[in-house]
Amino acid sequence: AAVAAIDEDTANEALEMIHVDFEELSPIYDPEEAMRENAPRIHEDQNNNIPVFCDLNCGNVEEGFAEADIIIEDEFRTPAQSHCCMEVHNIVAKWESSGRVTVWASSQSPYALKNRLAKACKMSPHQFHVIKPHVGGAFGSKANMIPMDPIAVFLARESGSPVKIENSREEEFFTITPRHPTTANLKFGFKKDGRITAKQARVVMDNGAYNVTGPAILAYNCIMFSALYRCPNVKYQGYLVYTNKVANGSFRGFGTPQAMFGHEIVMDMGAEKVGMDPKDIRLINANLPNEITANKVPITSCGLKETIIKSAEKSDWDEKRKNRVEGRGIGMACMIHTGASSNMFGANYSGATIKVDIDGSITLSTGAADIGQGSNTVLVQIAADVLGIGIEDIQLVQGDTDTTHPDVGTKGSRITFCAGNAVEDAAKNIRGQMVDVASEMLGAAPDDLELEKRNVFIRGLPDRRVSFSEIAQFSYLKRSQLLIANGFFNQEISDTDPITGYGYESPAMIFATQVAEVEVDRETGLVKVRNLTSAHDLGRVINPMLAEGQVEGGITQGLGGTLLEDVVFDGGRFVNTNFTDYKLLTSMDVPKIETVWIETNDPNGPFGSKGIAESSTILTAPAVANALYNAIGVKFNSIPITPEQVLKALKRNKHKG
Amino acid sequence: AAVAAIDEDTANEALEMIHVDFEELSPIYDPEEAMRENAPRIHEDQNNNIPVFCDLNCGNVEEGFAEADIIIEDEFRTPAQSHCCMEVHNIVAKWESSGRVTVWASSQSPYALKNRLAKACKMSPHQFHVIKPHVGGAFGSKANMIPMDPIAVFLARESGSPVKIENSREEEFFTITPRHPTTANLKFGFKKDGRITAKQARVVMDNGAYNVTGPAILAYNCIMFSALYRCPNVKYQGYLVYTNKVANGSFRGFGTPQAMFGHEIVMDMGAEKVGMDPKDIRLINANLPNEITANKVPITSCGLKETIIKSAEKSDWDEKRKNRVEGRGIGMACMIHTGASSNMFGANYSGATIKVDIDGSITLSTGAADIGQGSNTVLVQIAADVLGIGIEDIQLVQGDTDTTHPDVGTKGSRITFCAGNAVEDAAKNIRGQMVDVASEMLGAAPDDLELEKRNVFIRGLPDRRVSFSEIAQFSYLKRSQLLIANGFFNQEISDTDPITGYGYESPAMIFATQVAEVEVDRETGLVKVRNLTSAHDLGRVINPMLAEGQVEGGITQGLGGTLLEDVVFDGGRFVNTNFTDYKLLTSMDVPKIETVWIETNDPNGPFGSKGIAESSTILTAPAVANALYNAIGVKFNSIPITPEQVLKALKRNKHKG
Repeated sequence: AAVAAIDEDTANEALEMIHVDFEELSPIYDPEEAMRENAPRIHEDQNNNIPVFCDLNCGNVEEGFAEADIIIEDEFRTPAQSHCCMEVHNIVAKWESSGRVTVWASSQSPYALKNRLAKACKMSPHQFHVIKPHVGGAFGSKANMIPMDPIAVFLARESGSPVKIENSREEEFFTITPRHPTTANLKFGFKKDGRITAKQARVVMDNGAYNVTGPAILAYNCIMFSALYRCPNVKYQGYLVYTNKVANGSFRGFGTPQAMFGHEIVMDMGAEKVGMDPKDIRLINANLPNEITANKVPITSCGLKETIIKSAEKSDWDEKRKNRVEGRGIGMACMIHTGASSNMFGANYSGATIKVDIDGSITLSTGAADIGQGSNTVLVQIAADVLGIGIEDIQLVQGDTDTTHPDVGTKGSRITFCAGNAVEDAAKNIRGQMVDVASEMLGAAPDDLELEKRNVFIRGLPDRRVSFSEIAQFSYLKRSQLLIANGFFNQEISDTDPITGYGYESPAMIFATQVAEVEVDRETGLVKVRNLTSAHDLGRVINPMLAEGQVEGGITQGLGGTLLEDVVFDGGRFVNTNFTDYKLLTSMDVPKIETVWIETNDPNGPFGSKGIAESSTILTAPAVANALYNAIGVKFNSIPITPEQVLKALKRNKHKG
Repeated sequence: AAVAAIDEDTANEALEMIHVDFEELSPIYDPEEAMRENAPRIHEDQNNNIPVFCDLNCGNVEEGFAEADIIIEDEFRTPAQSHCCMEVHNIVAKWESSGRVTVWASSQSPYALKNRLAKACKMSPHQFHVIKPHVGGAFGSKANMIPMDPIAVFLARESGSPVKIENSREEEFFTITPRHPTTANLKFGFKKDGRITAKQARVVMDNGAYNVTGPAILAYNCIMFSALYRCPNVKYQGYLVYTNKVANGSFRGFGTPQAMFGHEIVMDMGAEKVGMDPKDIRLINANLPNEITANKVPITSCGLKETIIKSAEKSDWDEKRKNRVEGRGIGMACMIHTGASSNMFGANYSGATIKVDIDGSITLSTGAADIGQGSNTVLVQIAADVLGIGIEDIQLVQGDTDTTHPDVGTKGSRITFCAGNAVEDAAKNIRGQMVDVASEMLGAAPDDLELEKRNVFIRGLPDRRVSFSEIAQFSYLKRSQLLIANGFFNQEISDTDPITGYGYESPAMIFATQVAEVEVDRETGLVKVRNLTSAHDLGRVINPMLAEGQVEGGITQGLGGTLLEDVVFDGGRFVNTNFTDYKLLTSMDVPKIETVWIETNDPNGPFGSKGIAESSTILTAPAVANALYNAIGVKFNSIPITPEQVLKALKRNKHKG
């Protein structure tokens, strides 16, 4: 049942007239309980509550553990987290007289929405025209069609009027798929010199009541857990488990934050046991360029070592580890993640077109969706750089399925790499066309021509020049040729195991290290993060300000999850659905952040670049937890680490001590 | 001075506070007076009031007249006419935060408007994004930038808000450039067998106070006067003359209606003198395909003879000329005009793109401006036909300078031919790409493949087929290739005299004949048009219903000008600026119209087609005047032919009789 009305009051009145009788079944909220053999089935048509069991075995962990000098085992928990986009989910649907439907939606992927709407509405994709206006935050929550989307289309059809549906903040909280709460039991073996001989994980991921992107997120958890550091023997057993709660889904990091939290705390535990500096145990195990991991993930560019070294240098790591100030601590965490998504769960492509009008106007059209991260600017920069012009010389057409090329959407930190490659292709092509025309106009070989300020001139003879407008006029009128070029990036089909991600391929992997410095107030339990040094191998920085924005935004979101944010359930009901009870960091709470760029110049990225959007979110929790251990000797195996928990832990330690 | 305000009342109040002191000079309203040597100059910086003197001499008219058996001389007058678009001129301008200006304008040529705005505002063209929504009539009046356009941009900049300017109906009447009033003194020489030996014209065209498209309209008047029928000796002297009235400009027919009015009455006068049927004198002189006229206008396809024969047949011409009913008459007129515009006053090009998305959605983008004539449908039909699909399978992107290719605009009946050629090119190209992919998928030679219902199949093996969606997926994912194709039509530069149009080239010329049957009420002077038979060589009919719409609309507009419409001046002021005083035909006044298609299959047109938009407007006045002469023996040398004039003429004839 759905209601459309001319105003909100009328709609609410109508809604009150709908009475639903529920038959209450006995619910299951705890995944371990849901996994039991005799547990009631949440979906009656399935044999159990485990839609995915992910079982990966690389090398031989038994032998690996046998080789080890020390073994570390522990359990780690990460909770649900809500995206808290400042712009709640909303959609406007309008049936046109042509029988097509125009949809304005806050979406990470207008093309995917177009196709999913077509399926949901049993219509043809070409009947949908999806427009993505400016998006006020997404973080994974706007990657998929949600129920309100087809409902708006149906209501618009029935009412004959445009229909808008917009979540209230409360609805946004309890309908949008949070991060998967995860419990990981880890076992690592280390040699005395710090080398990891084997690692093993048993992961239980709470999927909520439905599959959204759960299977993919579990696979990413497995892939990244297995791929970080050089370790030949890996065993991973992951369970995706239904419970009677809101379905969980995509959230910045996509399974990797849950993988890195325990992984990077265990690294510190191992370092302590073998008597090494946490920096050194990471360096000795660090991934290297042009290697393939145990779970067959190919790595091209890799600056992990440099991120460790540089973040330590910039944070004065050695000095601060040596001369500890009471109540203060410093900790480190590393990560691996995709910097260009992959085609594991669908294709991975982007298209771009650049046209030069007869008046010299240059327009770039891209199907890539800027959702606030600034990819529009980055893509225009790439085109401008190839053409030797300023970004103000390029108009951008984007966010519209009728006027751009298909793009799989904004996810997996893929836009700079994938859409950037398509744009670079198109720009090089149109540059070639313009140089070719100029070559005829100037009577000079194409190789002797250079571009500058919307002109093409003969190298060494700067006065022998023709402007872009003159070139365009010549092409249109004398050659009868449009000036237009297309670019396309497509990751070719790869052979990846769909459950475990074994053989996972991304066009580029990214690496990062973060150092956190904390200070603990022993009276209140309040954790103050003094500094965060965040070093990123992002290939090459196209736009430092926007890249910094991604790092700082990611840290803020990660730190919120580390210290404050928690989805509180009353039974199966998400109850703290407002910003009074669901606490977010404010701008006053954001620590001093130093960003360090490690430019590895990726061989396949546009201008050598890779993605950056997710890394710092992933790193913050383990770096802070390790810093807290360094500060007060308390190991936190779960987040959020609230003042209450710090006080409790300090009390416990005191009793022990 | 211009005023922007939050509502109309406030704007009007502000306008009242502006006081302008005029210094009145002595005005000139009559062009003959303005031409006198000692006439005051309307523009002080010019030597006289004649911005253009058009002097064409082809062959030798003296010899031509000497050869002639009879000579006809007479003077003809056509008045100003107002476009009376149901949608008045209006524009919305909005400065974007990027520094670009978005303009929504009722325009025949968004690309031309973009460039003219850039010049007027001293900005770069790429700073303008012009969007043309549905246009409610234009007829030439929306081909050019008008003062309100840059004013809206300036006011929007100063106010920081979007600014809309919309003419009132009164403003629409007195600011929009009407058809040029024209006086033509014609002299034709005929042999006894009806052949034209020479023709001569002295034309005075009232330009109003400024040059808009006056010089081009005078040239077209000269070109079409000279080019109709096979006549080796032509002399044309045309004067474009400034007067202190509203500037005149482009209007459906563009100088040709003024040329054909006298021309076709003289043809009837000649026929009478040599004792021939008006049909036969036209047949003997008719233009033929693949000829070049005396003024060097190349003709490719030409169905003039067939239009004469068929319109006579369909109207029962022979019978009705022979057995005349008292008070009734039948008359005929022919015409030549461009069916694809030309590059004489600027370029003549159109671009198109067709993309096929990975889901099989097909989008056509065109810079051509549909202004109500239905060209969008025609262009989609052309693409659909090439691809063997329905028009509902194609989405159209149009009317937007950011997302389409440059197009010189909607004028000179050029869209079907020029934009149609671009679309056909693009469609053939994308068809080729899809067939190529299908060829690989089906393992069959491209030549063995056929298209049907969004599928490609092997000829003779209809089950061996792949759908467009499958082809698209294969192309994107397996070949890493976008499916996209561009088409471009450009008329190559031709060598035309800019004043006389000697050597004028259009990609296609069109021909038409119209037969009018009238009945005159001798009591009231009311002329009732009983039937109009309108036969058109339009190459090939792409969309009969839309083509009929053009013929019927053109007749209605032409008949309004023939019987009713007149711009009344009080001194230099246009005074009948409302629909009470400026009379238009209503739907009740439209006669029975029979449309006849002569399909000559133009060798260069898309699917053999040419333009149709202007012909019937051009033909109606001379056909009706000739029919009136046949009905009551009175020759009308000027329009409108109002009941008052008919009564006056009948009285005059009676006195003579």
